[in-house]
Amino acid sequence: MNRRHFGTLATSAMVTALLREVAEVRAAAPPSQATPDQAIAEATRRHAKLLAGPKLTIAMMPYPGMFLQDLIGPLTMFEALLNRDIFLVWKDTSPMKVGSSITLTPTTTFDQCPSDVDVLFVPGGVPGTFAMMEDAEVLAFLASRGRTAKYVTSVCTGALILGAAGLLKGYKATSYWNTREILSVFGAIPTEGRVVVDRNRITGGGVTAGLDFGLRVIAELRSQAYAEAVQLYVEYDPQPPFRAGSPKTAPKEAKAFVDDMLGSVVAVARETAERAQSRLGR
Amino acid sequence: MNRRHFGTLATSAMVTALLREVAEVRAAAPPSQATPDQAIAEATRRHAKLLAGPKLTIAMMPYPGMFLQDLIGPLTMFEALLNRDIFLVWKDTSPMKVGSSITLTPTTTFDQCPSDVDVLFVPGGVPGTFAMMEDAEVLAFLASRGRTAKYVTSVCTGALILGAAGLLKGYKATSYWNTREILSVFGAIPTEGRVVVDRNRITGGGVTAGLDFGLRVIAELRSQAYAEAVQLYVEYDPQPPFRAGSPKTAPKEAKAFVDDMLGSVVAVARETAERAQSRLGR
Repeated sequence: MNRRHFGTLATSAMVTALLREVAEVRAAAPPSQATPDQAIAEATRRHAKLLAGPKLTIAMMPYPGMFLQDLIGPLTMFEALLNRDIFLVWKDTSPMKVGSSITLTPTTTFDQCPSDVDVLFVPGGVPGTFAMMEDAEVLAFLASRGRTAKYVTSVCTGALILGAAGLLKGYKATSYWNTREILSVFGAIPTEGRVVVDRNRITGGGVTAGLDFGLRVIAELRSQAYAEAVQLYVEYDPQPPFRAGSPKTAPKEAKAFVDDMLGSVVAVARETAERAQSRLGR
Repeated sequence: MNRRHFGTLATSAMVTALLREVAEVRAAAPPSQATPDQAIAEATRRHAKLLAGPKLTIAMMPYPGMFLQDLIGPLTMFEALLNRDIFLVWKDTSPMKVGSSITLTPTTTFDQCPSDVDVLFVPGGVPGTFAMMEDAEVLAFLASRGRTAKYVTSVCTGALILGAAGLLKGYKATSYWNTREILSVFGAIPTEGRVVVDRNRITGGGVTAGLDFGLRVIAELRSQAYAEAVQLYVEYDPQPPFRAGSPKTAPKEAKAFVDDMLGSVVAVARETAERAQSRLGR
């Protein structure tokens, strides 16, 4: 099954074929009652043919001061893909403290990262984003892999880092709700949307948008049918108990809190973007 | 502001007071243009009085073979709380590999975990859940802290672990969609719902339900107004690109894939639950 075939939406003929195959493997190999590990491995093997596509190379860049959920949402979705390598790329592979209580360990240095990746992904998060926007080593790495990556992607303020690396000029893109407009500093076209796709740039909104983003990217990389299977697998049937997730729907008091909490952050983001862009322009 | 006051929903009087306070702190302390770190610290200080409640102690139990998003969704929400200690509790504090590419480091051993916690939380994930359901040290720890915890909580198959620790008997609870019914083995009452609250037991559905769950718990611990501010902060305005997140809405082919992938897992989950329950009964 070639990439192009997987890249198109599932046709009913394909679905019929897949369902027939499911029935066949069910008949041929009843569920093992061995150990859970074996059972999972077996199910994975049984469906390898259905779920596999061309080998994918996914490079995700964690960094100090990022927002962990920005990374883990998309990672959760990407880990459900078969036949892929996921690299957590950073300057070094020392354990990195993220948030108040998680330490994660990058798997791959910038130098070791494959030169051609299918997905280049940058999470957001304050204050880390600001340092990244002015970190020459990081920007050089992103510019280099971004030139050839099949998809150049971000969630939240990660888009500001892509912008600072010169990767969003002329592209529609989104970011965290209160930093989206700053993308225009980099010549990007700030665009409302939980996930914004413009040619091979795919950007997600703030933090939790990484889940919607991850499914959208899987649909691009494989197929809608594959993304739907992943969505059910992670039971992504969101039912927020309150209606406060965007500045348009949030009660006034929630909006006032967060505006005041983040007002100075937005100002710093804009200043940093302007400095980064003026360096880019040189 | 005492716990009881924060525990009730925001009244309009409270909101008015908070808004007045926001205006006052704005006038008194214009946003700093110093460094992002300082700006954030300053904003946090400015709102400390508004956002603070009694000190909270939150114990979350990561384990090998858990599903990382199950932990990170609630953690993302809980980290937005001020005046709380979050403990990642486990048998030891050695780095723990989770999923294909993340290593995390527990912060606190079972022995070091405070004896009275406000929230005891257990994530789900296969195959880790099965080992936890039969791990005497884990079950003893959960039973001990669960006796006095203000809230005993889980996401996904974490509910099976709570059940195996004897903590769900007679309580309504939910779990991952295809393991929910197994909760009855432990004398729990399997209940449909993204988040199910029964007295001080709060259980969430599969994986991504941790986000909805986290907001619900914050509303219990602090107030709905606080939870709404957190929801906006993490831009939780979900817009799944497809409609496949529950077995009721998923297209037939996605359901067939996942059923076949997880069919043997469900069988193992039930067998494990029955063994665990028969040990509990002794």
